[in-house]
Amino acid sequence: MTASAALVVERAAQVSAAIDRAFDMLLAVPQDARRRLYEAMRHAAIGGGKRLRPLLVHAACDLFNISPETALRVGLAVECIHVYSLVHDDLPAMDDDDMRRGKPTVHKAYDEATAILVGDCLQSFAFEILADEQTHPDPFVRVELMKALAVASGAGGMAGGQMMDLEAEKSRFDLATVTRLQNLKTGALIGFSVEAAAIAARIPPDGRKGLHGYARDIGLAFQIADDLLDVEGDAATAGKATGKDAAAGKETFVSLLGAPRAREQARLLVDQAKAHLHGFGARADLLRAIADYIVERDR
Amino acid sequence: MTASAALVVERAAQVSAAIDRAFDMLLAVPQDARRRLYEAMRHAAIGGGKRLRPLLVHAACDLFNISPETALRVGLAVECIHVYSLVHDDLPAMDDDDMRRGKPTVHKAYDEATAILVGDCLQSFAFEILADEQTHPDPFVRVELMKALAVASGAGGMAGGQMMDLEAEKSRFDLATVTRLQNLKTGALIGFSVEAAAIAARIPPDGRKGLHGYARDIGLAFQIADDLLDVEGDAATAGKATGKDAAAGKETFVSLLGAPRAREQARLLVDQAKAHLHGFGARADLLRAIADYIVERDR
Repeated sequence: MTASAALVVERAAQVSAAIDRAFDMLLAVPQDARRRLYEAMRHAAIGGGKRLRPLLVHAACDLFNISPETALRVGLAVECIHVYSLVHDDLPAMDDDDMRRGKPTVHKAYDEATAILVGDCLQSFAFEILADEQTHPDPFVRVELMKALAVASGAGGMAGGQMMDLEAEKSRFDLATVTRLQNLKTGALIGFSVEAAAIAARIPPDGRKGLHGYARDIGLAFQIADDLLDVEGDAATAGKATGKDAAAGKETFVSLLGAPRAREQARLLVDQAKAHLHGFGARADLLRAIADYIVERDR
Repeated sequence: MTASAALVVERAAQVSAAIDRAFDMLLAVPQDARRRLYEAMRHAAIGGGKRLRPLLVHAACDLFNISPETALRVGLAVECIHVYSLVHDDLPAMDDDDMRRGKPTVHKAYDEATAILVGDCLQSFAFEILADEQTHPDPFVRVELMKALAVASGAGGMAGGQMMDLEAEKSRFDLATVTRLQNLKTGALIGFSVEAAAIAARIPPDGRKGLHGYARDIGLAFQIADDLLDVEGDAATAGKATGKDAAAGKETFVSLLGAPRAREQARLLVDQAKAHLHGFGARADLLRAIADYIVERDR
């Protein structure tokens, strides 16, 4: 393992442990008829997962001396949104997946109605976490974080991309449309994760262009790596089913470009992403290492 | 019709028209693969419905000279949450309803995957609306509104109550448990609708006790009236299926108390709700009229 990959693995383990501890504390199971709901929320939110988005939040917070408490709580919020999207995407009416993060999906371990409510509750929980003054003392920062997360996760972001993804099974999308789809479906939330630190530092949108460019590039590189893993990876390592896109007849970066060119494109995007960080010096080393790691990972 | 009922009907018509106009403007359909998502969001959000929650927001805003723009946008946000909950509750895995507000439910008019995403997007849209400075110039007020809405709609509020409602089909709930269920399932969002005006007026929680009591009482009265309509009403007037609770073997206020005592209890709650408003004078006339209207309505 390179020194850069070791840095990512070490920080990712710290962040994952902190996220699990926080969810364990925040999602205490009440002794009433909501017990099953909270147990299912814990099943979805605790354990497993790469925690890439919280890791990106932490790495970007390194740039601006943002407090660990802010970084943790913003990471929790974005992970709530990510996990809710996985729980709903796995439903029979959507991607119909039985396994996620090496465990049965929520509707398999519980039932569909519970899975729908788990997703709904994790979404509102993300905003509840951000609204609390423990996240940041300045209410303006909290509002801006919530607004950015709402936009990144809704019809103009992640969920809009998910809708395009459903339509992708019916149409033949070209490279521009697949790029747009992925910029919404995975890119918007990755963008929030990286830019949240700049919002917390009250840097105006004009000053966030480098981070915005970095996020856009690693978002696409991440998706290409995912498409390659879907074609070449195995389900045991991935912790979920593979080979699904081809089976569904969906165009992906790999189906449109072929694996060798897709791999080359991901590498180019990573170099471009790192170039966006040139002004930040050594403080951006973790962000650089994450960019490399994203295309080298095996799950 | 009494003068009080006429006041409610007149203001409700104004509020409904304003809500429909605003949704029509805000939910412009994009010319890309998200077209179907936005069309389905419009199907769910525009037209029909009593718009009780936005009406309550407006009525409570009368008490504190809150701007019409704030009242409208808070009403839109709470209606987004209410509509998302209806879209998800109507899904086959939940209550499995075909008709809502006199139209086919979203999963019937479109499909289940689209209905799941419509609900998800309307939830994030509620927070996007509240986060915008058009809602209120003070970011602290916007944060407090968002926090209150997140709590009222999540596992500790509406969605938690929905989970209890699912469990109600498996257990025999007593009156205390049904009351708790309904305080969460419908009461929490009605409470937000009434208290939002006090939040916008920066009245601290201590000063909101009267409004809180009013909201709790009309919330239960509203639910008892709903249970009575479910037993005695007809589907054409209600715009949705009736007789569902008894068919599902769920305990309700009516099954536990019997219709005559339930009706009496609703009437008592309305009187109690109005008593909570004694300090507000004529400015609270619309809130008083709504309390009466809630138990007299036929849908």
